Amino acid sequence: MPEASVRELTDIPLERLGDEMLELMRTLYPICRSLTGNGVRETLRIVGEVIPLSVTEVPTGTPIFDWTVPREWNVSDAWIADANGARVVDFQESNLHVVGYSTPVRARMTGSELEERLHSLPEHPDWIPARTAYWANTWGFCVNESQRRAIRPDETYDVCIDSRLEDGHLTYAESLLAGETNDEVLLSTYVCHPSLCNDNLSGIAVLAFLGRRLLELGNLRYTYRLLFSPGTVGPLTWLSLNLDRLDRVKHGLVLSCLGDPGPVRYKRSRRGAAEVDRAAEHVLRSSRADALIEDFVPWGGDERQFCSPGFDLPVGALTRTPHGLFPEYHTSADDFHLVRAESLADSLAATLEIVAVLERNDAYVNRAPYGEPQLGRRGLYHEISAGAPRAEDSFQRALLWALNLSDGSHSLLDIANRAKIAFHTVADAAEALFDAELLERVDQ
Amino acid sequence: MPEASVRELTDIPLERLGDEMLELMRTLYPICRSLTGNGVRETLRIVGEVIPLSVTEVPTGTPIFDWTVPREWNVSDAWIADANGARVVDFQESNLHVVGYSTPVRARMTGSELEERLHSLPEHPDWIPARTAYWANTWGFCVNESQRRAIRPDETYDVCIDSRLEDGHLTYAESLLAGETNDEVLLSTYVCHPSLCNDNLSGIAVLAFLGRRLLELGNLRYTYRLLFSPGTVGPLTWLSLNLDRLDRVKHGLVLSCLGDPGPVRYKRSRRGAAEVDRAAEHVLRSSRADALIEDFVPWGGDERQFCSPGFDLPVGALTRTPHGLFPEYHTSADDFHLVRAESLADSLAATLEIVAVLERNDAYVNRAPYGEPQLGRRGLYHEISAGAPRAEDSFQRALLWALNLSDGSHSLLDIANRAKIAFHTVADAAEALFDAELLERVDQ
Amino acid sequence: MPEASVRELTDIPLERLGDEMLELMRTLYPICRSLTGNGVRETLRIVGEVIPLSVTEVPTGTPIFDWTVPREWNVSDAWIADANGARVVDFQESNLHVVGYSTPVRARMTGSELEERLHSLPEHPDWIPARTAYWANTWGFCVNESQRRAIRPDETYDVCIDSRLEDGHLTYAESLLAGETNDEVLLSTYVCHPSLCNDNLSGIAVLAFLGRRLLELGNLRYTYRLLFSPGTVGPLTWLSLNLDRLDRVKHGLVLSCLGDPGPVRYKRSRRGAAEVDRAAEHVLRSSRADALIEDFVPWGGDERQFCSPGFDLPVGALTRTPHGLFPEYHTSADDFHLVRAESLADSLAATLEIVAVLERNDAYVNRAPYGEPQLGRRGLYHEISAGAPRAEDSFQRALLWALNLSDGSHSLLDIANRAKIAFHTVADAAEALFDAELLERVDQ
Repeated sequence: MPEASVRELTDIPLERLGDEMLELMRTLYPICRSLTGNGVRETLRIVGEVIPLSVTEVPTGTPIFDWTVPREWNVSDAWIADANGARVVDFQESNLHVVGYSTPVRARMTGSELEERLHSLPEHPDWIPARTAYWANTWGFCVNESQRRAIRPDETYDVCIDSRLEDGHLTYAESLLAGETNDEVLLSTYVCHPSLCNDNLSGIAVLAFLGRRLLELGNLRYTYRLLFSPGTVGPLTWLSLNLDRLDRVKHGLVLSCLGDPGPVRYKRSRRGAAEVDRAAEHVLRSSRADALIEDFVPWGGDERQFCSPGFDLPVGALTRTPHGLFPEYHTSADDFHLVRAESLADSLAATLEIVAVLERNDAYVNRAPYGEPQLGRRGLYHEISAGAPRAEDSFQRALLWALNLSDGSHSLLDIANRAKIAFHTVADAAEALFDAELLERVDQ
Repeated sequence: MPEASVRELTDIPLERLGDEMLELMRTLYPICRSLTGNGVRETLRIVGEVIPLSVTEVPTGTPIFDWTVPREWNVSDAWIADANGARVVDFQESNLHVVGYSTPVRARMTGSELEERLHSLPEHPDWIPARTAYWANTWGFCVNESQRRAIRPDETYDVCIDSRLEDGHLTYAESLLAGETNDEVLLSTYVCHPSLCNDNLSGIAVLAFLGRRLLELGNLRYTYRLLFSPGTVGPLTWLSLNLDRLDRVKHGLVLSCLGDPGPVRYKRSRRGAAEVDRAAEHVLRSSRADALIEDFVPWGGDERQFCSPGFDLPVGALTRTPHGLFPEYHTSADDFHLVRAESLADSLAATLEIVAVLERNDAYVNRAPYGEPQLGRRGLYHEISAGAPRAEDSFQRALLWALNLSDGSHSLLDIANRAKIAFHTVADAAEALFDAELLERVDQ
Repeated sequence: MPEASVRELTDIPLERLGDEMLELMRTLYPICRSLTGNGVRETLRIVGEVIPLSVTEVPTGTPIFDWTVPREWNVSDAWIADANGARVVDFQESNLHVVGYSTPVRARMTGSELEERLHSLPEHPDWIPARTAYWANTWGFCVNESQRRAIRPDETYDVCIDSRLEDGHLTYAESLLAGETNDEVLLSTYVCHPSLCNDNLSGIAVLAFLGRRLLELGNLRYTYRLLFSPGTVGPLTWLSLNLDRLDRVKHGLVLSCLGDPGPVRYKRSRRGAAEVDRAAEHVLRSSRADALIEDFVPWGGDERQFCSPGFDLPVGALTRTPHGLFPEYHTSADDFHLVRAESLADSLAATLEIVAVLERNDAYVNRAPYGEPQLGRRGLYHEISAGAPRAEDSFQRALLWALNLSDGSHSLLDIANRAKIAFHTVADAAEALFDAELLERVDQ
């Protein structure tokens, strides 16, 4: 059993890793990603330099449960130019300017005609919104308010969206880190958003560096599967191609929006009290006073797919401020002003802490269950006794709890929660008792 | 499935119906009712003009579980007259003056001798109490304090109670409104109280007009059984005559004390979490901030009988201010000053809202349970997405909850409670998903 | 059924018994007790004058689960004398001066050499600590701070511990009070502490007088087993010798620290909601506003052994201020200044009240479960009814609750808790209904 390496899991250089994650995000930021296309491929290629990835390409038209893999979308340029040929809106300045999955356009039209194709944010006049029309067969531009006002109703404009929407592939990538068992921990994030930092270059960066850390250590109990895929259809595609292996997924986390300065937030799986839910809650409550624990709701991120009633997988979601709850969400203001190296590092640390609990969460049976065994002769209790209660010493209390509750029906996490002692203190106590041959491990 | 008419159930002219219920109460007020006798018969005849009733007469002496149908009691006159023949207490002025089930009396006695036969309320000197001695073989008069004081110990009085207590019948009435299934909703009120308004002409009026509304609409899922009977022995008699059909009773409500201005109050069935309990709690909590929800206790109204351990039927009790909790209870002050048309109308509306939940509370199974189905192509989601959480739109949330929890084990009411969304929004969402062939109904 | 004597159980002369318990403690105080030895034998002989005891002697070396019966320890004298032969520490003044189970010593050494053998309490300079080294093969002295300072590093001292540590016996005693059934209530306390009052001469005194009270009354349902034994190994030894009879133990209490003026405190068994837990909680919450109810933790007194996972017996612990939570704990200050006759008497009363609930906690079945039976003709309800709710009269409410919940699955304690009525009112109501042939007892 690899306790040693588990303890190292969370022993990481936070400051350096925060900076490295931010650097990865800066590299990925300019790329124009969408549900499909070369932006996703380029993103996965770069992430693959942090952690080895295996890429899957699924052809357009492949049926995916209630869905179908869409046509592949690529865009090389787009603009709105005035009568003088001056570009008043230019994709080269920000890939948010084009509504995602816009059909190709080459047209001349008046400002009035253009009006219904423009999306802006009157309440945030300087920001460009991010919009998509994946399944709609339409096109449009996203602009800030001054760009919108600059387009005069009576003037004529040249409009170009140099996009291709054609049969191709949906692209996703996995990294499979084999452990002692085939039981899997599924860690998933989405790679379909264009130049948006917190949502979700932060999730990509945290997942990539999490994988790198797990790979460095090796020797873990679980097999870890990291999934980088476009939102919604990505997980659905992966699920449809792995139906016969889903019973291997013992725990899972969807990671996203992990770079902003808000507190860490855990959203429970649909099951509500799955082991990952209880591990995450234990870790966050015992280490981060401001952490938020929330019940499952059927909207949000890709946990919606894993937690749909047909799958009902034990997959929770870890974020800082999530989808829709920060004002910069899905706008050009979700940039590097919003994210921080410390937040990224803390998110990575929290995820590793949850993983560490899952790795060590064994159940034991007390081999000397009739009365309290004689701890003194095993060096686990003072020779000269003041009779004092041992309640001040959490390791001593953890020893007694581990002995008392190790009846095969309580995991260490159950014991830690009942005892109100940090998980790793209880796990260390159980290890000492195991070494003293007072506990034996139960196959779970 | 009759959703259309269910929606109409609660679409009623409140003001007009409040007035009509009050008018019915005015017609019924002067009648001298008791556990048995012609007052009950006359009351049921008048109620039968609102809703067709079928009357059952059960002979004196019929065994009813631990009880026996008592002798029938009728009273035509009663008085206490002074030496001059002047009536100082007169049944013709108020039928409350005679203790219910008083044996016939024709006697001359002194004021002192009369003393122990008089009941009054020192704390409310102007009120006449209402008293009964159904099982006691005694007699007495109820008077206000000035009447009591007017009877001088040394003077002689003529006392008459012109009552008959003889073999006859116990009378009750039912209205059976057939629905799609034989599953029944039992709605019960008591008709044994003399000239008392809130307790319980209000219950009689609300139940009669509730029946009329159900009859108007027809086409409901459940069969509705309305029971108008004398308290305690009435329901017991009905139960004893319907033992082999009690398994049809899926839900029930005892209605009483529904005209005072206090908040609506629901008392749970003995089971505590029967469907009717959960429906009533959902309706009242989501529509009436001041509504009270209380646990079952084995005293109160006729729910005591339905919820005795041998039956344990899922029957709750809906009141405004109930038995014993308003000072005018069982006194002459429980008159038309106490009750209001608006309260009666609101009570009727609340009952219909509970019925409407019961009618629509189906369970469904998601036919596309693997991931979230593509709502956009079914017109159930925006074409151009801001990616924004759909949490502000309760219909959108209801769609997602209905899909996520429709696994056969959650009813719409379960879903509404979990989602914290009004039941009918969830039911409308389920209907839209049913129409889109995304849900199918489960036979319950 | 012995209701009459159960009612007498708690009808005791508190003041006289408090004084008698204190007197017993004064007799026992000077005796030098330890895990084994003549001090325990003498203690049990004296307790045997209050209640007949049967003594068991178990030889040194007998295996006891993970333990072994230790060698027997007796000490006749011990001192530290200075160069002039003056005793600066003298066992004759307080038996706390010798570390329990000290090996025999006869030596001359310097004050510096003595230093590591001395135990004192800098934070309480006037107190002598109590220390033991049962399993350590060492020796030492406990002293107050002025004694410690009086020992000069450079001077030479004669040190003597005239102890014998040799094969012998572990001694414990039982009193078995036979009841109607073989089902047992196990009441246990420890007798291994030297001159310490609250911990635990108080527990010995309360248990002895509890036994005397049970014996006086006789005619109880349960068989009561009182166990006076040295802590930890005493209960373990008893358990090991009674393995095949442990299924008789239906309820149990460990009694200790019952003389201080703090509030009564009940610590739940490992099961958490055993009948004794619920009985103790009901009694304490309904009679003592300041009583404390605490969850099981695997440290404290002998409940640790009874509640180890191999036994998991329904044994709670009743104390006032327990082990380690009063500053005088395990010091010479745990003397007669700390304990009070009133506290001892109240502790005895609380224990008897818990026993009385266990004795009467029957379950019944309603023989007239169809509706509410006619209480009036059985003299259990008013003849002339004001219709008023009977909620003010707790006996009336108890009658209705007992009828409603007596379906075989609710004990009287369940009913009392649900009804929020004192247990004995519910039990009296059930008895009245039993006499009226409305309830029959269920064999549990």
